[in-house]
Parts: sequence; structure tokens; C-alpha cells
Amino acid sequence: MSLEKVCIIGSGNWGSAIAKIVGTNTQVHSQKFERTVRQWVFQEKIDGQNLTDIINTQHENVKYLKGVQLPENVVAIPDVVEACKGATLVVFVVPHQFVRGVCEQMKGHLAPNARAISLIKGLEITPTGTRLFSEEIERILSIPCAALSGANIADEVAREKFCESTVGCQNLNDGKLWHSLFDTSYFRINVIEDHVGVQLCGALKNIVAVGAGFSDGLGYGSNTKAAIIRRGLMEMRKFGQMFFGDMVQTETFFESCGVADLITTCSGGRNRKVGEAYAKTGKPMDVLEKELLNGQKLQGTLTAQEVYEFLSHRKLENEFPLFLTVYRIVYENAPVGSIVRDI
Amino acid sequence: MSLEKVCIIGSGNWGSAIAKIVGTNTQVHSQKFERTVRQWVFQEKIDGQNLTDIINTQHENVKYLKGVQLPENVVAIPDVVEACKGATLVVFVVPHQFVRGVCEQMKGHLAPNARAISLIKGLEITPTGTRLFSEEIERILSIPCAALSGANIADEVAREKFCESTVGCQNLNDGKLWHSLFDTSYFRINVIEDHVGVQLCGALKNIVAVGAGFSDGLGYGSNTKAAIIRRGLMEMRKFGQMFFGDMVQTETFFESCGVADLITTCSGGRNRKVGEAYAKTGKPMDVLEKELLNGQKLQGTLTAQEVYEFLSHRKLENEFPLFLTVYRIVYENAPVGSIVRDI
Repeated sequence: MSLEKVCIIGSGNWGSAIAKIVGTNTQVHSQKFERTVRQWVFQEKIDGQNLTDIINTQHENVKYLKGVQLPENVVAIPDVVEACKGATLVVFVVPHQFVRGVCEQMKGHLAPNARAISLIKGLEITPTGTRLFSEEIERILSIPCAALSGANIADEVAREKFCESTVGCQNLNDGKLWHSLFDTSYFRINVIEDHVGVQLCGALKNIVAVGAGFSDGLGYGSNTKAAIIRRGLMEMRKFGQMFFGDMVQTETFFESCGVADLITTCSGGRNRKVGEAYAKTGKPMDVLEKELLNGQKLQGTLTAQEVYEFLSHRKLENEFPLFLTVYRIVYENAPVGSIVRDI
Repeated sequence: MSLEKVCIIGSGNWGSAIAKIVGTNTQVHSQKFERTVRQWVFQEKIDGQNLTDIINTQHENVKYLKGVQLPENVVAIPDVVEACKGATLVVFVVPHQFVRGVCEQMKGHLAPNARAISLIKGLEITPTGTRLFSEEIERILSIPCAALSGANIADEVAREKFCESTVGCQNLNDGKLWHSLFDTSYFRINVIEDHVGVQLCGALKNIVAVGAGFSDGLGYGSNTKAAIIRRGLMEMRKFGQMFFGDMVQTETFFESCGVADLITTCSGGRNRKVGEAYAKTGKPMDVLEKELLNGQKLQGTLTAQEVYEFLSHRKLENEFPLFLTVYRIVYENAPVGSIVRDI
């Protein structure tokens, strides 16, 4: 049996935390994986030095995961074609706007039996339909693509704080391989078959977190917040089952990618924080984005808008009162208090 | 159609908050309920005055829910027989140790078609079996008994902060009545058929909260805590389905009594707090109970012990690693860190 050749596409905060795990596990499971893990690293100069050279000599991504030692068998490579050549297992962990371009470059360079997994958060939602990043990867590269998501703040994972994560994978043999590649004593993997639900949760949770932030900002107590989280979880599930049918399983929402990630996102996180500030100060959302996120666009409000347009195109927005209310507060100046009155 | 006669048995913090809701709703739904709500109040002297007289003149329970106005149609009665005479709907909201004695006194005084609902948290768990308080009420009074539980901190409910609650009721016609009696714009009732799961959640959540407190005390992040909450929810469900079979439904754990109450209990609450203090200080649990709870016994640690004895009697303790680990940390001096290593 030939060994699986692993490559990681991406090297940000989350990509680096995952590289630490993957590099350890290819050593632990040497009967399954080649020892070397190739990581595509977008080249940057750090104090005049190439980031790839720093990673390959100091075994630390000084820019995106400072202070965390990477296994020496993780090899940083600035050229994506070289990084992925002949790979049988490909871990995608790039910002979503780079997926397409990177896949186009990789086309024709993977092993014929290659399989991929997407750690990219979210999915594309337009008025006419949805598109998962796993689908994009499958479409461009013609290989099956699983998904991994969970209550996983990268820095906590890198510091080996106990947590769980969910792999959604239609092929259970591949699922076992992904389990071996990612599971550790502090990062526990559950494999389920529902790769759609896994990705859906990672996107829709951010809308709920904005709503939970409104509740915090209004000074409502933990009863109210728990009710918003619960109703959010129910709308996430309803959305999945209404538009993807049986592919999205009820059990998925009990997994780390479901309820656990939602809890984490609604207790810390930037979406919750901006929601709270909005309720407290009444400042426009774009001003708060500038003040609190250096002008970066907030994921939860964007997703609320995309989901609203998708739903209203089908005249179904009233079936999702929490999603609708977050949208109306952010984009139609509905009073913040409607977060409890209208859901 | 004759009107339902409502009586409330109990007048503590939660009983008073519920009296406010029930007293309002018998007025709103005057086609279903007699206006007057009789409330059994355990007589106490407050500055020389009877608590019942204060409630009946000032319409405020100055001892247990200060500052909240009760509807004037809630009538406090110090004699439990007089309070319940001829009642058709009985709301039990007394501390659990009083259930039996109070039911014995009430025997023979209710209307023949009376139905009850239990707002009493928890259930009795002994090595040989479990007993729900709804079962006790049914057994002694020979009337059907539903259950209500949810993410409901009494003071927040009394101040009309938005939240939800779950009614578990096998008879759906009765379920509709309970809905009319409790549902308001700020206290939203979902009726389900699973009265067992509703009560189970209210007891088992406290074990999970102690574990979440350990995680907080050890300085673990929100990933870890979310994982503990999630695994706790799964063990609550497994316990229900293993020992009560189909009576306990998966959907129950998505309700307010399930996931929402668990989230609230693991974010605030005394069980979490004492767990946190234990991990931080290493002081014995009984010392912390004295310091933080005036020597009152902590529910979560008691339940952990009862559940452990119930499970080990059946050699099933290893099927519930989180419950087992909380027990071992509290009663067998297992290291606090095992809360993540052993679950």
C-alpha cells in the first residue's frame, strides 16, 4: 500500500495551527502517511527574509502563529504547483476569495486518486442559489472534497487547549484517513457523512452571533441570549433541511461544527462584539466596522444580507424570523429591540 | 364549558415570577380560566406582618421577589387545602423535599378532572432507579402531571426579559391549556410530548455546569468549554434514551429545557461558579460550599454522585465519561485536568 502524500494549501493563523497537527500526525501514523507535509505559503518578506525560509529553518510562522513550534517535517513552499505536485490528500485552508484562483493553478498536478478537505469557512449565497467551497474544489479539480469545521479558535488549538472538530465526508474510508490526519488527544475529530451541514453551520452561525451581540448590548440576561442561540440553531437547521433536504442531518447540529461552534461564536468573537457595540452606541455598522475591525467587513452582517436576498427571492424570509430580524436591524434601521420582539 | 380553576402550590422566587405570569394570563384568557388564581404561600412573619397579608394588600412578595408587582387576582392563602380546593389546574413550584408532604395534604381536595404541572427541578436518582417528581405527584394525587422547564432565571423572567420555556405534556389538549396559562410575549412556551426529557435535563445539566466551571477555573478557553457543554448535552440525551427509551425524544434536547438551559447554566450559575473556584483554589468542595453557598449543598455535585451510583450499579459508568469524570474529580480526588483528558 503506498503512503498518502499530504499537502496543505494555506498558511494563515488557522493553516499554521493545522500544519502543527498534521505534521505531528504524519509522524504518528507513519504506516499511512508520508512523513513530509508540504505547505503552500504565500511568500512574504519579514525583515528582509522570506517567510518560507523562516518557517523552514526556525519552524515557526512568525507572522501568523508566533511562538508556536511547527514540526520540522512541515516544509513551506512558495510555489503552489510545486507544493501540490503528486499530492493524494489536499487540505484547503485559504481565505475564500483565493479558492478559485489557487485551484485553477493546481489543476492537473495532483495524484489521480487525490482527495481534498476544505477548512474554509462559509459558502457563497446569492439570490439564485448557494455554492459550497467544497463544491467549487470538486468542480475545478474533479476530486472529492470533504469539510472540517468546529469550535476551533486557532490560537487555542495551537496552544493545545482541548477542543473538538467535525469532519463531514461522504466516503467513510476517506473519513477514516482524515480522522487519522487530524485527530489528537487535544483536538478530537468526529466524522459524519454530512459535509453540507458542516459548511452551512460555519456560515450561518455568524448571523446568530450578531443577534446575540444585540442582546448583550441591550443588557438582556443569559436567558435571552440562550433563547437567541437556540432559535438560531433551529433556523440554521431549517435552512439546511429546507434547501438541501436529507443531505443535511439533524445530528450535525449536535456536533462541534453545530452547537459547540455556535456557543463559542456567541460568547466571544467579532460578530458578537460588533452587534453589542451597535446596540450600545447606535453608531452605523460601517463606522463600527472601521473602529473595531479596521474597516474589514463583518462576516455576520454580510451573510445576513446574502441569506435575506436568497430567502426573499423565494418569498420565504418570514420562515426565518431571527435571520430576518438581524437583517432588518442592520440594513433597514429596525429597532435593536426587535431582536426579541420579532423572532 | 366551565372555566378552569387555577392554583399555584409554592411562592418562592420562581413561584412568584410564575404567579405574575399566570395571574396575567387568566385575565387575558378569560374564556378559559377563572380570574382568581389561588396561591399557597408558606406563612412567614415579615416585620410582624403575615407574608400572605402583605401579598394580598401590597401585591408583592416582599421576601422572595421584591420590587415586582403581582396581579391583584393572585390571592395568597396560607392553608394548602383551602388553596387547592376544587382546583382543576395545579402548578407545583415548591422545593422538591416538600412535594410528598404537600401532595398528601392535598389528597381528595382537587376537582375530579384536575391536572397538574411540575416546575420542580430535578428528579430522584438512587442506585436502583429514578423517580420523576411528576410521577410522585401522579402517584399520590392520581391525576396526570406535565412538566415545565427552560432557560428561566426567575428574576429575569419577573423583569420581563425575553426567554423561552418548554412544557412536556403527554395529552396535547392539556398542552394547549398549559400554553395559554404560561405563554406571554416575553415568556414563550413550546409544548412537546416528552415530559420525561424535560425533567431529566433540569437535573443532569448541573453536572455539566460543574465540569464547565472546572474548565473556566483552569483558564481553558471557549473552545474547551463549548466542547464540554456539547459532550454534556450528548450524555444527557444518552442517559435519557438508555433508561427511558423512546419516551425521551432527540428533539427535546434542542428545546429551551435542553440546549438553552444548559448554555445558561454553564455561563452563570452556582454550579459553574463552585466548579471554577475548586479548580482555582484546590479547596475541598464542602469548604467552598460553605464559603460560596452558605453551606447549602450544591445540586450538581449531588446529582453527579447519584448518577454515578445509578450507573455503577449497572456497570455503565464508562458509557458516560463526562459524568464519571466530574464525579471522580469531586469525590475521588482525580486531578481537575482530567475534565479534558478523560472525557
